[in-house]
Amino acid sequence: MTNGADILAQTLAAHGVDTCFANPGTTEMHLLSALGREEKLALHLCLFEGVVTGAADGYARMARKPAVTLLHLGPGLANAMANLHNAKKAATPIINIVGEHATHHLGLGAPLTADIEGMAQTVSDHVVTPERADDLAQATVAAMAEIAGPEARVATMIVPNDVAWTDTTVTAAPQTPAPAHPYDADAARRAAQALRKGADSVLILGAAYITPRMAQLAHGIAKLTGCRLFAEAAVARIARGGDTPPVSRIPFHVDPASEALSGVTDAALVGARAPVAFFAYPGRPSRLLPDSATVIEVCPPLGEIEAGLEAIATELGATPVTGTSGTRPDAPGDVEITAETLGAAVASVLPEGAIVVDEAITNGANVFADCGHLPVAHDWINNRGGSIGYSLPASVGAAVACPDRPVLCITGDGSAAYTPQALWTMARSGLNVTVVILANRSYRILANEMSKIGAGSPDATTMPLMSLEDPAPDWVKIAEGHGVRGLRVSDAGALADAIARAMAEPGPTLIEAVM
Amino acid sequence: MTNGADILAQTLAAHGVDTCFANPGTTEMHLLSALGREEKLALHLCLFEGVVTGAADGYARMARKPAVTLLHLGPGLANAMANLHNAKKAATPIINIVGEHATHHLGLGAPLTADIEGMAQTVSDHVVTPERADDLAQATVAAMAEIAGPEARVATMIVPNDVAWTDTTVTAAPQTPAPAHPYDADAARRAAQALRKGADSVLILGAAYITPRMAQLAHGIAKLTGCRLFAEAAVARIARGGDTPPVSRIPFHVDPASEALSGVTDAALVGARAPVAFFAYPGRPSRLLPDSATVIEVCPPLGEIEAGLEAIATELGATPVTGTSGTRPDAPGDVEITAETLGAAVASVLPEGAIVVDEAITNGANVFADCGHLPVAHDWINNRGGSIGYSLPASVGAAVACPDRPVLCITGDGSAAYTPQALWTMARSGLNVTVVILANRSYRILANEMSKIGAGSPDATTMPLMSLEDPAPDWVKIAEGHGVRGLRVSDAGALADAIARAMAEPGPTLIEAVM
Repeated sequence: MTNGADILAQTLAAHGVDTCFANPGTTEMHLLSALGREEKLALHLCLFEGVVTGAADGYARMARKPAVTLLHLGPGLANAMANLHNAKKAATPIINIVGEHATHHLGLGAPLTADIEGMAQTVSDHVVTPERADDLAQATVAAMAEIAGPEARVATMIVPNDVAWTDTTVTAAPQTPAPAHPYDADAARRAAQALRKGADSVLILGAAYITPRMAQLAHGIAKLTGCRLFAEAAVARIARGGDTPPVSRIPFHVDPASEALSGVTDAALVGARAPVAFFAYPGRPSRLLPDSATVIEVCPPLGEIEAGLEAIATELGATPVTGTSGTRPDAPGDVEITAETLGAAVASVLPEGAIVVDEAITNGANVFADCGHLPVAHDWINNRGGSIGYSLPASVGAAVACPDRPVLCITGDGSAAYTPQALWTMARSGLNVTVVILANRSYRILANEMSKIGAGSPDATTMPLMSLEDPAPDWVKIAEGHGVRGLRVSDAGALADAIARAMAEPGPTLIEAVM
Repeated sequence: MTNGADILAQTLAAHGVDTCFANPGTTEMHLLSALGREEKLALHLCLFEGVVTGAADGYARMARKPAVTLLHLGPGLANAMANLHNAKKAATPIINIVGEHATHHLGLGAPLTADIEGMAQTVSDHVVTPERADDLAQATVAAMAEIAGPEARVATMIVPNDVAWTDTTVTAAPQTPAPAHPYDADAARRAAQALRKGADSVLILGAAYITPRMAQLAHGIAKLTGCRLFAEAAVARIARGGDTPPVSRIPFHVDPASEALSGVTDAALVGARAPVAFFAYPGRPSRLLPDSATVIEVCPPLGEIEAGLEAIATELGATPVTGTSGTRPDAPGDVEITAETLGAAVASVLPEGAIVVDEAITNGANVFADCGHLPVAHDWINNRGGSIGYSLPASVGAAVACPDRPVLCITGDGSAAYTPQALWTMARSGLNVTVVILANRSYRILANEMSKIGAGSPDATTMPLMSLEDPAPDWVKIAEGHGVRGLRVSDAGALADAIARAMAEPGPTLIEAVM
């Protein structure tokens, strides 16, 4: 006999779902049992729900298919929401399963009762609460189709406990998802015309994944026309190195971003939205393109982006640019770790096939630029949603998705402190993740932002609220406490050596890079 | 010149708010500056938002007045929501401040844009988004009145960045909160009659804080009538020891809870709701009182509970019972740490004035019972909302509220792993918190619950999802990594010694109690 939970697990497996990140509770025991019985599914325990959803995000960015999560009631979902926010903004497909009290128990005001649907709506594209075991298969099929279609990526299924434990034999046939949004052929022609203006025009690329082909096409267009070329500020995943020419990101900070786009008369958006400032600042623009610029929307974010680029290139007669001219830089010597030397250190050792998960924040600009011309192919994962604490969990998921590829997680210490529990899953699941903690012992970006936003300079009262000194976290001990090898370096040469060694070894390593 | 943020800080200070727990970002820099300028406010940095709100909860339970939080946009609120859920269920007053993008920046789809109001509604009693700086004072006054009244406790104020940074001189006069719900005098008379039935009747007490007087009155009523007497399963704060007779809690598990209330014909609820099971189980009741029982609601949870008890006692001619007959037990010897010896260890050393924050879960029953008769007065804090990861943050807040009282946090290792960042604030703020980690290296309660709920027994696939072995977290290193003294004990005598020493010393200590 099968119950609702079994039907759910079997339906997921039939759709090719093979990975579950979980932090279950009592109301998820039937779901856990069923997921455990489904041999096609591997289960990974995470000790905090933000790790569950961040891992599911990192997994899907690399595997190009969704993982399933398992979360405990409203508070479990609440803890998972910040990284669901990031996943939603990144257009990452996730099947997010939240247990709920049995239907007859709702309404009694038990301690854990909460408005799960209300929570889920804020971070999901699709929310469903099946009310009977007989409805579970159909609801799962519909959710899988929905997140493969042109409108949705994060689906939350709320499963009441009695719906999971009630027997059923009702299955459902898979649904064909609706096709992706086509690109606008007329807009592609207009874009080609506009980009002929050269440096007064810009091609802005956005996608859940900028593939090698997309980067090659975009560079071909830019080479022919002389137009500016940017990726959005935080593309979920970008192919880089090897045969893939580097696509620069629109800078994070509003002033250099405005500068990068100043004087633009025509902007072609392919998979991108019109760029906006990360935050509003008094007296500075929120929209980054000049108000007078003509904006041509060739393809929406969940559309046929590569086809749109092909169309522009064909219209222009542009040839894709393959390969980079770059060589690997020398390792830095015994010098301080700074944004500049961090870039050199990583570029000097990054191995073929590496997956870089980037949460370097204030120290991130150089390392991205320095790795763009490397002869080795690699992928770069950015935080699309801006909620910090995403990189350690996303690294878990990327490593699960690609067990043969080394993962390099570069994170600020402030960011890492939101989700340190991810270290434990790296140890538990034996993942080849090298974590570099950039230990500047502050929320450095806030100290920089405070005066920029007109709130004065940090003083004796407010500076402690942006400082991680007193006490400085000891990341080597935090790593070891979670079962992960830890070491500390304070010069860039030693950092390069440590990264090279750690990425070549199986299992996780944390390197505290004291800045 | 003052801006909206200043008016907000000054209005809070004028209402006696003196403590802020914060994890700010760019959109909160004006708020942070203003809170820093307000000399009556002390600021405490937390490295994760669940610590912010858990600390605000623990603070208010002990200080009997609200703290203010400071959170960064939707994701900051999301991370804070699990402990806001707990605070709301515990009826703890909190002024929860969430920064928002400037009003002109909303609608542009910046990465961190989210449905903050939607999130806040799920864990707040009162939500407001002031739209102009001139509205901030009035909104703050209204929120303060609301959470001191009979309907609400958790108020979330969402403050757009331009509302904070715009100049204003508009202030507002304090509002008198609506009075507490009166008790029902007729119901009190009927309750007195019913409780005369003795052991067939039960008096169930609920409150955000069971004061010594409430416990004394309830025991006086029970002594005279022979009725059963219970507190709800998880009262937010209970006075215990010294002159205060112990009020037992309704057991957590459904079977002993049903047993404790079996045969009851009449139940008088004073500040309590009709008791329900924590979870639903197939074939077991969700309502814990017999269906045939007559339920008399003397006073709602946010009502005049003490007056209601006084009325019942007066009607009966019952005299409050003062004091306990208890003596302090001997310390256990060199024996394994179990639920039983944990109780003896704590009871043998708990000092006068201690605040016990209880998240012992599977090991909690004995320690609560064993401390009930101690000659030393102390307070016991329970998790009312059931979202785990509350005790480390709540301990931060309790210690900030009561700097002269030692705090003992007793937590399962699974629970502690949700919010370990609280350790850092304990170190930063020099708090006298003794953390006992009950290291059974599993979600033991889940392994127990799985078969109880009919989901079979843990097997080779599912047991690893309830186990914290492989690797076992090293809590001494995790503590030291956060700047907190750590030590490990594996027998109950050493545990008692370590607790006694740690509570007598200033500053935080973590004791990993290996079970």
